[in-house]
Formats: sequence, C-alpha cells, structure tokens
Amino acid sequence: MTGGSVDPLDLVAVADRIGIVAFAVSGVVVGIRAKLDLYGLVVLGLVTAIGGGFTRDIVIGDIPRVLQTTDYLLFAIGATFIGIVGGALKLTAPEPIMKAADALGTGAFAATGALLSREAGLDWPAGVILAILTATGGGVIRDVLAGEIPQVLHRGLNATGSAAGGAVTLALAPTDVTAAALAGGIVALVITAAGHTERVRLPKI
Amino acid sequence: MTGGSVDPLDLVAVADRIGIVAFAVSGVVVGIRAKLDLYGLVVLGLVTAIGGGFTRDIVIGDIPRVLQTTDYLLFAIGATFIGIVGGALKLTAPEPIMKAADALGTGAFAATGALLSREAGLDWPAGVILAILTATGGGVIRDVLAGEIPQVLHRGLNATGSAAGGAVTLALAPTDVTAAALAGGIVALVITAAGHTERVRLPKI
Amino acid sequence: MTGGSVDPLDLVAVADRIGIVAFAVSGVVVGIRAKLDLYGLVVLGLVTAIGGGFTRDIVIGDIPRVLQTTDYLLFAIGATFIGIVGGALKLTAPEPIMKAADALGTGAFAATGALLSREAGLDWPAGVILAILTATGGGVIRDVLAGEIPQVLHRGLNATGSAAGGAVTLALAPTDVTAAALAGGIVALVITAAGHTERVRLPKI
Repeated sequence: MTGGSVDPLDLVAVADRIGIVAFAVSGVVVGIRAKLDLYGLVVLGLVTAIGGGFTRDIVIGDIPRVLQTTDYLLFAIGATFIGIVGGALKLTAPEPIMKAADALGTGAFAATGALLSREAGLDWPAGVILAILTATGGGVIRDVLAGEIPQVLHRGLNATGSAAGGAVTLALAPTDVTAAALAGGIVALVITAAGHTERVRLPKI
Repeated sequence: MTGGSVDPLDLVAVADRIGIVAFAVSGVVVGIRAKLDLYGLVVLGLVTAIGGGFTRDIVIGDIPRVLQTTDYLLFAIGATFIGIVGGALKLTAPEPIMKAADALGTGAFAATGALLSREAGLDWPAGVILAILTATGGGVIRDVLAGEIPQVLHRGLNATGSAAGGAVTLALAPTDVTAAALAGGIVALVITAAGHTERVRLPKI
Repeated sequence: MTGGSVDPLDLVAVADRIGIVAFAVSGVVVGIRAKLDLYGLVVLGLVTAIGGGFTRDIVIGDIPRVLQTTDYLLFAIGATFIGIVGGALKLTAPEPIMKAADALGTGAFAATGALLSREAGLDWPAGVILAILTATGGGVIRDVLAGEIPQVLHRGLNATGSAAGGAVTLALAPTDVTAAALAGGIVALVITAAGHTERVRLPKI
C-alpha cells in the first residue's frame, strides 16, 4: 500500500472478517432454533464461520490455517460469543445487514478458496469446487449438525455466486492476483445478494 | 495389452465409469425427492459419485485424485447433468439396469479402494475399511445431506460385498494385482447384486 | 515402569481402552434404536469408538493412527461385536457402569488429543479444540449417521470437560507430559461425570 491507495487484498481481508461475523451469528441462530446448549451454540457458530476453509485446507493437504493462526481463530470464537450474547439478550440483527454481511463473506471466501486451490496446483474445475466449498461448506456442516437439509442445496444463490466468483478469480489470476480476487469476490457477492432478494432462484424438478 | 487380450484393469476402469454414472444418477434421484434445487442436485449427484474416493484419498493423506484428474471430474459432472436432464424429462432408468450399474460400480470402487490402501502401506483390516469407504462413502454423504439415515446402514449388502471384495483383492494382490482387482471386484459385485434381490439381508436386532 | 510404580501414561492407555468399549457400546445402542442392520451397527460402534481420533489425525495431517495400528483397530472392532452380541441378547449394561466408562474414555481421549496437537506444533486454542474433537467427535458422527442432533451439542458436559481437561494438559505439559496427561484426563473425567448426574448443565437460550 503506497500513496494512499488501498490494496484490493486488504478489502478481501476486511470482507472475510465481516463474513466470519455473519456466518458465526447465522450458526448461533440456527443453534438456538435447534435448542442447543451453550456449547452447542459455540460449535455451531464456529463451524459455520470457519468450517468451509477448514475443510478446504484438509482437502488440499494442509493443516487448517485457522488452527495455525491463533488470532483468526480467536476472532471467530469472539464473533461466536457476540452472537450468543446477542441471542441471550434477544437482540436480532436487522435482516438487510445480515444479508449484506453474508454476501460479503461469500465473496471473500469464494475468492480465497479459488486462490488457494490455484496455489495448490489444481486445475480450474477443482478450483471452482474449492471456491464453493470454502464459501458454503461451513453452512452445510451447521445445517447437518442441526438436523436440517443444508440450505445451500435448496435455497439462495450462494453456491452459484461462489462458483461464478471462483471462476472469475481463476480466470483473471494469471494477470493480477489481487485484482482477480477483488473481481471474483464482487461477482460472488452480487449473485449471492441477488439470491437474497428471492426474486432470482434456481429451478427445481 | 497384446494379442487381443483384455487387461483386467481396463475392465475395472470401465466398471468404475459405469459406477460413476449409476452413483451420480442415484444422487440426483435422492436430491429430487428431497426437493433440492439445481445446485443441490449437482452436489448430490457429484458427492455420491466421487465422495467415497474423495474421502479415501484424504484419509490416506493424498489430495483427492478426482481433483487432480480433470477429465475424471468432468466425467462425473457430466454424468450428474445427464441424471438431472433425465429427471427433468421424468425419465426413469429401468430398475434392473440401475441395480446392475450400482453393483458394477461397487465392485470397481471396492477393488480400487483396497489397492490404494495397499499402496499406502496399510495392513489388511485398514484396507477392508477403505474398500468399504470407497464403495459406500459417497452414498453415505448423499443420504446425510438429504436428511436420511444412510441406506447402507440398514439395507442391502453393498458394504458386505465391498468388505468381501476388498479382502479378496488384498489377499490375491501379492500374486497378481490385476487379477486380484478383477476377482475382488467380481466378489463385491455378486454380493451387492444378491443384496439387490432383497432375498438376502443382514439381520437386525 | 520401575520399582512397582505405575506410569501415569499407562493409566491413560487403560482409560483409553475402557473408553473405546464404552463408546463402541453407545454406538451400537444408538444404532439398534435407529433400526440399523448388522453392518450399520458395526459402523456405528466403530465410528463412535474411533471417529474422534480418526478425524483429529486427519486434521493434523496424519494418516489415522488407528488404521496404522492394527491391534488397536481390532480391539475397537472386537468391542463393537461385544456390544452387538450384548444387544442381541438384550443385555443392558448397568447405567452407572456405562457412565463411568464414558467419563474415563472422555478423560483419556481429551488428554491424548491435547498432547498430539502439541506434538503437531499447534497453539493452545487449537489444542483445546482438538481435545474436544478427539473426545466428542465420534459421538457426533454416530448421532449424525443415526439422524439425530448430536447429543454433545445439547446435553451433558463431555465437551466442557474435554475443553478443561485439554487446557490443563496443555498448561502442564511443559513441566511433565505424563503428569499433565493424567491431571488433564482427571479434570475431563470429573466434569464429564458431573454432567452425567444431570444436576449440572449448560444454559440454553
């Protein structure tokens, strides 16, 4: 960062942190609905926030980065506890803010998933799969643990957005990695947000 | 391959491809029943087809082969889309063909699971477990995502067949790997097919 | 072991074996309730007994130790079959014995999980997570496969105990690894047992 300009990767990192909070809170909300106890809420918040990246790292053969980066882990734990305190106080985050944060997180997670798969030497179809896994895997684990069919499999455009955003990131990465991450993240964000309006949806059979 | 003879490993590879199609279609069918959207159907088809081998590779410490072999991945994605188009057109694959394809796939997956565990230096009890995991793991993930108790845990003989086929493959492998894979695969196929008749079943308590 | 003294790590190993039996039996019991067949019961017994350590090893980048240690695997399989025979004979293990064995296993698993995360070079927050994963991960897989919300997320103090025991183990390990394992295991055991009384429980929202 020089001359006052903002590094696009910093934007992705900020979006990632916002996503962690949104995902953790969504985990806590699902956990309260499933009548979990305090520990269950911690687990649901945490797996929703970090489960996608955790699984992605295992798939590409790495010890999960979040276990090796203590402040990132503590940030996710902190976000989870904030969600729990909010739930105990019966605070509800305004729906539009939660949706915006979910879209931001999905964008950031899709972009980082794509870039890490590229670093692991994988081809683009695998990269798209890992972008989706990073952005939506946490929610899948959350829903399975809560005894529900994963939302991403029947609602919204988070997966479609992650796939498109991952593909854009991978397509542009050979020219400029940071611009690629930003562009791919924005694509994922926009499509995810479109899904949140519930006016656009995937067909069912 | 010389003199017109057929390499038994080619037979296993062909059976593996047939299995991929059968497993992908079974995933789509379960997904339609669970009212998933298009993305959900893609996931269910794909995890059923490749989830067993994917998990096995992670267990033995490898990046999943399917992510490193783009045509194999694209073949599985293609098989999934064929299943989805078939579902959209309300085509139903004839039951006997689906069962035969499932048995062929189970045979091929059990044999390859056993051989790869051997290459990873594992002892035969672990090899039998990995044969079962390769052949039945995809269906377990499919059912968990669809909110059902995994079929293999309460119906059919796919797991018994995979265990027996894996054991045969491991027992014969020191003499001739290709013959071992073929023999083990056939054992798994026959037992799985016997389970499909529903005249043979495992006891319940 | 010299002069008749008992190595504390031997105590942990004994508690571990008792835990394997208790966990396997609990898996079989849940499997019978879910109407699984013989294979399903074997899977549920086995994943409950070894699933926590299995997952932990994958997370820290190792091939699961249980697959590389054939007698440990065969011991777990044997424990599972004993559970199945007991179930078939409609024997019920007395509740207090099952609870004591569960607490012993939780203590041993939490201590070993913490020590292995330390060996893998992870920081203490990750170590506490791996202690919990080792001690409670098998039960989570068991419940998900049986179509239930994981018990540990809404009942008992097994996770709280594992977290506290893991933390104690990690805190003391720099001075004396064996004493640390023993102390941490006892902490996990006591808290888990307190949870079994159902007089102490975590709050719900």
